[in-house]
Amino acid sequence: MKVIFDTDPGIDDAMALLYLSKLPEIDLLGITTVVGNANIETTTRNALFLRQQFGLTAPVIRGAGETLDGVVKPEPVAVHGDNGLGNIDIPAVDESGLLAGTASQFIIDTLRANPGEVTIIAVGRMTNLALALRQDPEIAKLARQVVIMGGAFGYQGRSGNITPASEANIHGDPVAADEIFAAAWPVVVVGLDVTHDIILDTDYLAALAAEVGENGELLRQMSDHYAEFYNNVMGIAGVVGHDLLAVTYVLKPEWFETRDGPIRVVCDGIAVGQTIQMPASRVGGHPDWAERPAQKICIGVNSTAALDHYRQTVAA
Amino acid sequence: MKVIFDTDPGIDDAMALLYLSKLPEIDLLGITTVVGNANIETTTRNALFLRQQFGLTAPVIRGAGETLDGVVKPEPVAVHGDNGLGNIDIPAVDESGLLAGTASQFIIDTLRANPGEVTIIAVGRMTNLALALRQDPEIAKLARQVVIMGGAFGYQGRSGNITPASEANIHGDPVAADEIFAAAWPVVVVGLDVTHDIILDTDYLAALAAEVGENGELLRQMSDHYAEFYNNVMGIAGVVGHDLLAVTYVLKPEWFETRDGPIRVVCDGIAVGQTIQMPASRVGGHPDWAERPAQKICIGVNSTAALDHYRQTVAA
Repeated sequence: MKVIFDTDPGIDDAMALLYLSKLPEIDLLGITTVVGNANIETTTRNALFLRQQFGLTAPVIRGAGETLDGVVKPEPVAVHGDNGLGNIDIPAVDESGLLAGTASQFIIDTLRANPGEVTIIAVGRMTNLALALRQDPEIAKLARQVVIMGGAFGYQGRSGNITPASEANIHGDPVAADEIFAAAWPVVVVGLDVTHDIILDTDYLAALAAEVGENGELLRQMSDHYAEFYNNVMGIAGVVGHDLLAVTYVLKPEWFETRDGPIRVVCDGIAVGQTIQMPASRVGGHPDWAERPAQKICIGVNSTAALDHYRQTVAA
Repeated sequence: MKVIFDTDPGIDDAMALLYLSKLPEIDLLGITTVVGNANIETTTRNALFLRQQFGLTAPVIRGAGETLDGVVKPEPVAVHGDNGLGNIDIPAVDESGLLAGTASQFIIDTLRANPGEVTIIAVGRMTNLALALRQDPEIAKLARQVVIMGGAFGYQGRSGNITPASEANIHGDPVAADEIFAAAWPVVVVGLDVTHDIILDTDYLAALAAEVGENGELLRQMSDHYAEFYNNVMGIAGVVGHDLLAVTYVLKPEWFETRDGPIRVVCDGIAVGQTIQMPASRVGGHPDWAERPAQKICIGVNSTAALDHYRQTVAA
């Protein structure tokens, strides 16, 4: 399965990348970066670092440093640290892993070269994907599917993390997200409704360090900072592995319960960044959602299976 | 317990009124009407009819025929019928039950005359309450509590009925609802998250007709029209008793699971009418919600106990 991984590393992005590095069934074609968990220089540097650290061969392609909504948000240093990876020591990176050009152009070229074959896993703001769509709208027909980490639909009261209404990746560029949902490619949304079930607790992280070796220990070290945040805001002894769950969906969709229907994003006001799905089962529909294609949101997950699979895979 | 019932009858409003008529512990001081399930002439006529039909002595006070958002919505005749009560035959009503003056003034006068003692149960648009607050903001300190039927917070995917984001009573006057939530009185929100658990199915309605007699048969007749709507939109053989559950909360709050936190209402855009609560447990809060008092939303209910209690009470 051919994959583009669009990312803003970020600690849980690193977890997802380690996952991808251990999956022989996945042919990773490129790692595109975007502003989000840190600025674009930092997330691109981190992608290059993780690429060499995890022994990936796919190139890194630098993406958008500014979002389509024109709003600059503060870097979430309390979550991912000043360097985006929990303030671990990051050595000088091998710049030869960086491919020239922009992420959006890479996405276009790759989809056009592999029609119907490429899955995009996007775990940051959706700016690169929206720029690609604006430049070449027909690529929507060429993607196999787009699996995103983002959004929140209120299941189990999980309405938002950046605001009471909105999740960080969508809030970070609501305009881009809204354009992604409007396009004719099949989008699957792995949002807070399910990712908050993926808690890597202290024991789990210790086991990763023991079983996986150097890279497991690295994830554990990054997670110290991340865990402090989650302890403060959720009172849990562990971290939430949001982004890795988008990879899980690509591998094991049968572990997820989903709901179909068109999605819109609120682009201003107190609910800015909120994702609203009209369930496809709604009798009579609603005119404000009528023009949109049905997309899929995840509303339940077998979290035990997902956590076990991640650990077994990265330890293999 | 002294109660003002603010209502737009409405079939489930009628269910709630029959409930109130059978509860000796409740001292119903007045029935205030508002536009919603039908226009203000119709809801006021229906309130007068139900008052005499159910043997209530509390006066009816006519309320707002226009909402504070200035938007005229179509009458929901597919839900409540052309006459608001499922197109049953309604005889000429006894106009002597109608008290002169406006609903908002009645609310002010009643709260001022009974400081700390009056519970307002509001099961329509919140226009009368907001008008009362605008005219005399200090009444917020005089109410014992305000229990409303309205809103939807996404639990169990129950995000909206009028739009994918919003519930009918809040969508009907989002400006009024937002002012209600901002006031310093204790508000309890009984919304779709719990009311959709209160399904009066065909057997239940037949039992009401058999056990309650004339008024049970009347509810069953009204529900024929209402059931057609629910069969169309939800595929159920029965009706949802939204408004009666606000009365249940007043009687048996221990049957409800609740979440505390300030609430705002989206007043424009695709999410208009959506209720957004910031959970009080949110670490650091959020500036857009910071100035608001914590209110209570219902997120779970013992529906079996609620349905049994309703049936036993109205049959007694």
